[in-house]
Amino acid sequence: MALKITALAGGVGGAKLVDGLAALLPPENLSVVVNTGDDFEHFGLTICPDLDTIIYTLAGLANPATGWGRADETWNVLETIGQLGGPTWFQLGDRDLALHLERTRLLHNGESLSAVCARLCKRLGVTVSVLPMSDDPVRTVVLTDEGELAFQAYFVARHCEPKVSGFQFRGVERAQPAPGVLEAIQGADCIFFCPSNPWVSLDPILAIPGIRAAIAEKPVIGVSPIVDSRAIKGPAAKMYTELGYEPSALSVAKHYSDLLSAFFVDDKDRDWVPAISRLGIQVRATNIVMRDREDRCRLAEEVIEYVSKEVLMVVKS
Amino acid sequence: MALKITALAGGVGGAKLVDGLAALLPPENLSVVVNTGDDFEHFGLTICPDLDTIIYTLAGLANPATGWGRADETWNVLETIGQLGGPTWFQLGDRDLALHLERTRLLHNGESLSAVCARLCKRLGVTVSVLPMSDDPVRTVVLTDEGELAFQAYFVARHCEPKVSGFQFRGVERAQPAPGVLEAIQGADCIFFCPSNPWVSLDPILAIPGIRAAIAEKPVIGVSPIVDSRAIKGPAAKMYTELGYEPSALSVAKHYSDLLSAFFVDDKDRDWVPAISRLGIQVRATNIVMRDREDRCRLAEEVIEYVSKEVLMVVKS
Repeated sequence: MALKITALAGGVGGAKLVDGLAALLPPENLSVVVNTGDDFEHFGLTICPDLDTIIYTLAGLANPATGWGRADETWNVLETIGQLGGPTWFQLGDRDLALHLERTRLLHNGESLSAVCARLCKRLGVTVSVLPMSDDPVRTVVLTDEGELAFQAYFVARHCEPKVSGFQFRGVERAQPAPGVLEAIQGADCIFFCPSNPWVSLDPILAIPGIRAAIAEKPVIGVSPIVDSRAIKGPAAKMYTELGYEPSALSVAKHYSDLLSAFFVDDKDRDWVPAISRLGIQVRATNIVMRDREDRCRLAEEVIEYVSKEVLMVVKS
Repeated sequence: MALKITALAGGVGGAKLVDGLAALLPPENLSVVVNTGDDFEHFGLTICPDLDTIIYTLAGLANPATGWGRADETWNVLETIGQLGGPTWFQLGDRDLALHLERTRLLHNGESLSAVCARLCKRLGVTVSVLPMSDDPVRTVVLTDEGELAFQAYFVARHCEPKVSGFQFRGVERAQPAPGVLEAIQGADCIFFCPSNPWVSLDPILAIPGIRAAIAEKPVIGVSPIVDSRAIKGPAAKMYTELGYEPSALSVAKHYSDLLSAFFVDDKDRDWVPAISRLGIQVRATNIVMRDREDRCRLAEEVIEYVSKEVLMVVKS
């Protein structure tokens, strides 16, 4: 019988592993809880970059070159916004924009974000359960040497250049897990921490009241987003350095040491295996860089096999 | 010295005459007060169809085939909205959508509609003063045999099919004329009523407190939107019939008889000239159908010449 897995994911890195898992598992055995701390309002629209990356990837619509946005995209709206003197720092493709418009319309009609997400997934043929971490707005604010920056302002407009000193997840204290999130965690055989940014992709999910406690009851298997001291994509390594930590698989393992049962690191990071083991975490070194769809499926298969044979056996014993 | 004209206009018909006037007058001599009763919220965006038609026409961007929207348009967003199961009844071209997005962004920033309009005009090289009738939301509701319909629901979604029994301009009692509107009326030599729908394009403007009284102090010259018992475009004739009036140039003249100094009807409507004259309105019959840009300029020139020689002389005498 296939494992029941609930994965926590941010954007591009998370989407890759989730895509591999979705290729292997029956859809009812996979739930994805997605960070919404990156969400923001732009041109009056509610934009959910991580949810969209996960959905586009699972729908087979994602742009393989960028990891985000859609393949076969056109840019007529954004070009015209520029001609009108409007802001063009956030990439809004024409077909991508349709999703933001339709989501905003449904939200204005009073539907919750999770209901909208389920509806859009159904429309795009995504059968895996994709859940926003919360229906309540949580907004990640990056504390930097240039002051507080809304996440997208830091990430896109400022290209992650300002030096980071901390993060706030505004609204998180009052946020509830979205319907289905706690059930997906409680009903899973194990929880996967996708290779997403610990600081700004997974921490916001874990900060939603109730989620961390539910996860603590389950075996948690993580895949490192950092390989050979560098983030596979995005600012995770830079953030670790600026916050005073070594950017390494060990630092990521320490980040979640109270939750992790097992951790996948890259072959290049074999030297960290003993130190991670000493944290009481099972470690497996393999090739964790997912360059193509084959890599995604191979890594997903390897993680599932390892978990079935090595982690759940240990936990159950 | 050129006349100073302030024109009241709705969408396509009004835009044509305004375009002709703009070709003849120095920009500082022409102001256009535009109906915003057709405005609505769609996908969270504020859409102002009449303002956009006027602006696109004056900017030379309008689609000559439809009269509304932009030439050289693409439809990738709307196509994708359809694929997502969203509503596609309102035509949103990609480049047109950019204007709705940027306007909505500026409104969310706290700018008034008139300020946004001025900014967009400047950006698109429109030098004529284009003024929304009000910065306050006024929403035309069409009372029909199918119940109350928001204007765009009646006009676009239902193709003007329901039988009309009346109109409401929701919010008009509390609406103020936009900054510059009363000044444009008071500073004009005369007011033009463009060949726009009297019921749903010009009546909303005249219903804004203060506007009718200001206009009543000025010579008003109208151009009939009805030719040979038919509206040149749109539902004006159908509305007259359903409301119990003959759809004719005479009915339009009666509509504004307390305000009109002079009225342009089509050659085909020469038979109505004596009856309109008996209302105390000067009448001129000519070819008022504007099929191309040449027609617009010819009609604008004819109206300006007539007004200069026949109307203002009479008023001044």
